[in-house]
Amino acid sequence: MAQLWSKPPVPTAASTKPPRPLYTFLFIVILCILGFYTLHYAHSAPPLSTSQNALRLFLSAATNFTLSAYLRDLTLHPHLAGTKPSLRTTHYVLNHFTSLGLRAHAVAYDALLSYPTHSSLSAHFSNGTELVFPLSESTGSGSGNGNDAVVRPYHAYSPSGTARGAMAVFVNFGREEDYRALGGMGVNVSGCVVIARKGGGLPRAAVVERAALNGAVAVLLYTGGDRFRKGFERGTVMRGLGDPLSPGWAGVEGGEKLGLGDDEVSGRFPKIPSLPLSVDDAEVILESLGGAPTPSEWRDALDLKVDHVGPGPTLVDFDYQGEKKVVKIHNVFAVIKGLEEPERYVLLGNHRDAWTYGAVDPNSGTAALLDIARRFSLMMRSGWRPRRTIVLCSWDAEEFGMMSNPVTKSEKKSWEIGSTEWVEQNLVNLGSKAVAYLNVDCAVQGPGFFAGATPQLDNLLLEVIKKVEDPDSEGETMYQKWASRNSENNIERLGRVDSDFAAFVQHAGVPSVDMYYGADFPTYHTAFDSYDWMINYGDPSFKRHVAVAGVWGLLALHLADDPILPFNYISYAEQLKRHKEVLSNLLGGLVSLSPLSTSIQDFASAAKEAEIETQKLREQETTSELVVLKKRALNDRLIFAERGFLDTDGLEGRRWFKHLIYGPSSDPESKLDFFPGIADAISRTTRMSLSQKKAIIQHEVWRVARAIQRATSALRGELT
Amino acid sequence: MAQLWSKPPVPTAASTKPPRPLYTFLFIVILCILGFYTLHYAHSAPPLSTSQNALRLFLSAATNFTLSAYLRDLTLHPHLAGTKPSLRTTHYVLNHFTSLGLRAHAVAYDALLSYPTHSSLSAHFSNGTELVFPLSESTGSGSGNGNDAVVRPYHAYSPSGTARGAMAVFVNFGREEDYRALGGMGVNVSGCVVIARKGGGLPRAAVVERAALNGAVAVLLYTGGDRFRKGFERGTVMRGLGDPLSPGWAGVEGGEKLGLGDDEVSGRFPKIPSLPLSVDDAEVILESLGGAPTPSEWRDALDLKVDHVGPGPTLVDFDYQGEKKVVKIHNVFAVIKGLEEPERYVLLGNHRDAWTYGAVDPNSGTAALLDIARRFSLMMRSGWRPRRTIVLCSWDAEEFGMMSNPVTKSEKKSWEIGSTEWVEQNLVNLGSKAVAYLNVDCAVQGPGFFAGATPQLDNLLLEVIKKVEDPDSEGETMYQKWASRNSENNIERLGRVDSDFAAFVQHAGVPSVDMYYGADFPTYHTAFDSYDWMINYGDPSFKRHVAVAGVWGLLALHLADDPILPFNYISYAEQLKRHKEVLSNLLGGLVSLSPLSTSIQDFASAAKEAEIETQKLREQETTSELVVLKKRALNDRLIFAERGFLDTDGLEGRRWFKHLIYGPSSDPESKLDFFPGIADAISRTTRMSLSQKKAIIQHEVWRVARAIQRATSALRGELT
Repeated sequence: MAQLWSKPPVPTAASTKPPRPLYTFLFIVILCILGFYTLHYAHSAPPLSTSQNALRLFLSAATNFTLSAYLRDLTLHPHLAGTKPSLRTTHYVLNHFTSLGLRAHAVAYDALLSYPTHSSLSAHFSNGTELVFPLSESTGSGSGNGNDAVVRPYHAYSPSGTARGAMAVFVNFGREEDYRALGGMGVNVSGCVVIARKGGGLPRAAVVERAALNGAVAVLLYTGGDRFRKGFERGTVMRGLGDPLSPGWAGVEGGEKLGLGDDEVSGRFPKIPSLPLSVDDAEVILESLGGAPTPSEWRDALDLKVDHVGPGPTLVDFDYQGEKKVVKIHNVFAVIKGLEEPERYVLLGNHRDAWTYGAVDPNSGTAALLDIARRFSLMMRSGWRPRRTIVLCSWDAEEFGMMSNPVTKSEKKSWEIGSTEWVEQNLVNLGSKAVAYLNVDCAVQGPGFFAGATPQLDNLLLEVIKKVEDPDSEGETMYQKWASRNSENNIERLGRVDSDFAAFVQHAGVPSVDMYYGADFPTYHTAFDSYDWMINYGDPSFKRHVAVAGVWGLLALHLADDPILPFNYISYAEQLKRHKEVLSNLLGGLVSLSPLSTSIQDFASAAKEAEIETQKLREQETTSELVVLKKRALNDRLIFAERGFLDTDGLEGRRWFKHLIYGPSSDPESKLDFFPGIADAISRTTRMSLSQKKAIIQHEVWRVARAIQRATSALRGELT
Repeated sequence: MAQLWSKPPVPTAASTKPPRPLYTFLFIVILCILGFYTLHYAHSAPPLSTSQNALRLFLSAATNFTLSAYLRDLTLHPHLAGTKPSLRTTHYVLNHFTSLGLRAHAVAYDALLSYPTHSSLSAHFSNGTELVFPLSESTGSGSGNGNDAVVRPYHAYSPSGTARGAMAVFVNFGREEDYRALGGMGVNVSGCVVIARKGGGLPRAAVVERAALNGAVAVLLYTGGDRFRKGFERGTVMRGLGDPLSPGWAGVEGGEKLGLGDDEVSGRFPKIPSLPLSVDDAEVILESLGGAPTPSEWRDALDLKVDHVGPGPTLVDFDYQGEKKVVKIHNVFAVIKGLEEPERYVLLGNHRDAWTYGAVDPNSGTAALLDIARRFSLMMRSGWRPRRTIVLCSWDAEEFGMMSNPVTKSEKKSWEIGSTEWVEQNLVNLGSKAVAYLNVDCAVQGPGFFAGATPQLDNLLLEVIKKVEDPDSEGETMYQKWASRNSENNIERLGRVDSDFAAFVQHAGVPSVDMYYGADFPTYHTAFDSYDWMINYGDPSFKRHVAVAGVWGLLALHLADDPILPFNYISYAEQLKRHKEVLSNLLGGLVSLSPLSTSIQDFASAAKEAEIETQKLREQETTSELVVLKKRALNDRLIFAERGFLDTDGLEGRRWFKHLIYGPSSDPESKLDFFPGIADAISRTTRMSLSQKKAIIQHEVWRVARAIQRATSALRGELT
């Protein structure tokens, strides 16, 4: 191409010398070819038109057996991050990518992880009998071989510690109000081993911290609800962001590392030891408690019969010994270079490490990622190349990552290390070049499709699920099922920090999507999260895997191939309006929200203008320099609008969180799962004077209003 | 164009029906036109080739009389920010732009400024005589009419205050070491009116603050050196950033404003009042002092004869009354929209407000800006349009802005409000779209060309001054004169905060240039800074004005028109190496600088790669979509590399400063005018234990190393 276009002499020569017949003929022929080529190129430049074929090709390549095979392979052995079997999955994914002919590589980081060396628990009952708990899960034949390699139940980053003959006491969810209730009954937990039930919005770290504040010497945490009664829920109890030794920067080999003794590091680990407990084991102890009667308001919500909360008479011997180790973790990437815009990135991400076999969490998602890779490489062999670069990301050590803070109604798991380190390392390039991040963690944990997104991606998401068959109802699209289930738009927002999208949205301001099948699953973080459970309960036909892979891939193809990005900020504006209404009902005129209303209105009209411009430019198919750069400029504005919501100063006291619309509130019981700065201001000022309270909340309202103004001017792309 | 290109039927139709002779002929004609047009367009697209003509056209349009006329008009009346005459200059500049047919507009902000209402000073000598100082400058006929309107000498934001019969005492520069010396002689300044000499790296605010800490009740500040002995140097004594009522955000109308009572606001004003003093008046008091003899090390550096430092016997009556007012300030813009890349901005900026007539400071620069506007509009009438958008910025209220901190050897003036507010308001768009900011404050204050730049602009700057005649030596280019004066590269760096480039470089990470003729001038901030001084001393022939306007405009044209941006990061790498050497000599092995060496090496090789790529792409003249996007991508990397030096957390305790290579150190006596975070760590830890000292400095070294890594990956544009 380039050569052809840069040959000027022909016409100039022609214009100077009077041409002879043969020359004229040749000249005409050349021009015919040229003219046709030009028009053809200009009219239907392949990259612009392949998009539709690509979508068809991708959907037609769907198979369930490949997915089940990938999942089987990934879940043969438990693969806890930093262990040998985990390294095996690293190579498995890397080989899969390379064997498909994709450009793949792994990026290693040094991270501080935590493993158990010994644990024991026994109860001494008032009748003199003693019971020693095995603290292990007999998963039977069902859970695949290599069960011996399942890590014993523990809480990552718990300090080692022993308690002998300590009285057991039940503290419900271990929330402040629970301890107030106990205090009201004259129950003092200091010196006791606290038994708490997981839930109530409190992450493990917060439960342990509050128990320590109340003088407890150790914590036993069981997970109620619809669980396998013999399962122990593993998890982390660390606070803070990413690798504890490299807070705020990437823990690359040879990079800066804080010492374990550094306050900033040690401050993130709990002060007292803790262990998970199975429902069965918890019941044995709880039934044997005497002392104060269980408050009725607790009892109603309880799934176990607990008549008394103690303390005692049952005594507990508790022992946990663990070690913290700096180990290598590996993120694996496959890169499909874009043809026209190689320096614009569409990222698909899923974490690979698991507490045990990880059939649901996270390898149902990994299987989908691997199948998308297979289908993309098929398409490439038939000549397809994306317009923009597609990056498939397989993250490591997600499970060891941390809840910086309690966040969601269903605080499921902790926030990962691998993706955080990578985002920190690539912040500038992501900030200037990332189009979107599409996250899938537990792809399939049961029936029902759930999705979360930054709102400019709502429309695309709904359009895409119109194109994918519903796995659970013959002949229906996912959209039809979804619509019948959700009267109104039920897309979640991404203020949570419970999966890999957190760093992308809340630190880098990258438009993102997160999705999964099933609200929850009973084998969560237990040895029972195995391939057998998946084929017996989770997704016997693997149709749900097919569905998630389909949606995931189509989203990627649209974002990578559409000449104009399929972003729609009108839905973002509407969402912001709804958020504002919720806030104003909550605050009831305490402060003025007019700065917010004004900025949202302005944002809404900018969104409309952008939508009109988008429609106009979509129709322009020429590839003249002017049009090409016009489209690029509009696309960039659509990308950068999300960055506008970032504030360089970040959230008060938690500067790593830069996004003022979506991020975790530091108060687990906060009523807001958006505007985290305002949410914090509200809970921070509960005990302050009205004037102080007003001033602090009003200031945070202003900050959010200014963030929305930044997004507006980024979307308009005009300097004032 | 677009229409023409998107007409496909012609050839396809031709391929289906056998054409009749006439049709064939028509078809051929159409194709000839098409083909020729295509090739012509592809080969010499006007915008790509105008660049050279544009440069010639611009240089040929140079005149000195336009410049002198503009300066004369601007300096007819004193135009202190927020006053009526200042509003007149706003309209003058706005009308100038619009009358030239340029798209122009003004952006208003509400800012808290400060004006004097009353001031008086008298001295009572030991011989019983009294002297009342007029505290005004009789500038004679020379200073233009309307002299009555010159604001009386004062320090902006000084609190009102009175001192009666207080003993006068001399404290040299008012540095800590000066007070130590006085203490050593048993001299106690508490209750006294302190007389200090400006200089020693201390900004006014710091002089007043230290005097207050030592118990002084008021401060009289005179400026020694080569000054008009009757001149009073006005200036600000506020600390902090931008408008004090909107710290860190834009003080737009109806936006958030802190109250005057807010600690964050009041904390930025001095605790005791102060006034400027002329050298003549200072001498009268200083000569009359008794008490302790003047330390010899002070005396050597003094330009006045001061035998004793006091206190007394001379007594002083001091009275200053002022008011702080929220007033409107106006930034004025002319926008020349780019043809191919309208959403890439090249910004030229100068402030407009002055303490008095502002012939040097700043309107010698304003005259140059207005003349560049004239010459650009001439070029536009002859068909020229820049490739990228050029924005001419005329800032307001620079003089009221503040020294956040002492900075340079020659801390001349304070940092401005107008540009800071605007940068804060446009942060996202500037971050993603600003190519460069070119600043000129005092264009001409005397002989000799001085320039500062972020290092990737060094080469362009040197290339450009090769094209401009030297105003002071017939037949020589500015480069020849410059080279003869500077053995090695003497381009300053932009870590200072004494003009409008500060917010662009240190907050937004925009590559910038600053330049001026003359090292210093004797009428600085006095009523003598008038048109007459300029035509009698500063630049009688206005050739220096012509030279500055020439360099300024050529820089802008290259940055706006060159298809590949004329950035060269190799010189940035070399500069960083030199900085590192200076640092290592200073620290002498106290901490390890190897993280720095490693990152600088990597940056250097990335710079070489980028340079090679640049050369390659410069040769590709086609405008195919692929090449167009390739060039855009490279240009973006060249722009974003500078952003990489920003750290989202900013400097410790001064988060507004995001740039880790160039920014002000908080220690006026710091040996480093780069790596401000490291400079702060060094001065912050002087009294700490060696281990603490090492740890804190080492951490800051790591932060700088990571910033350089970010710049490297931005320059490479690759994700890890």
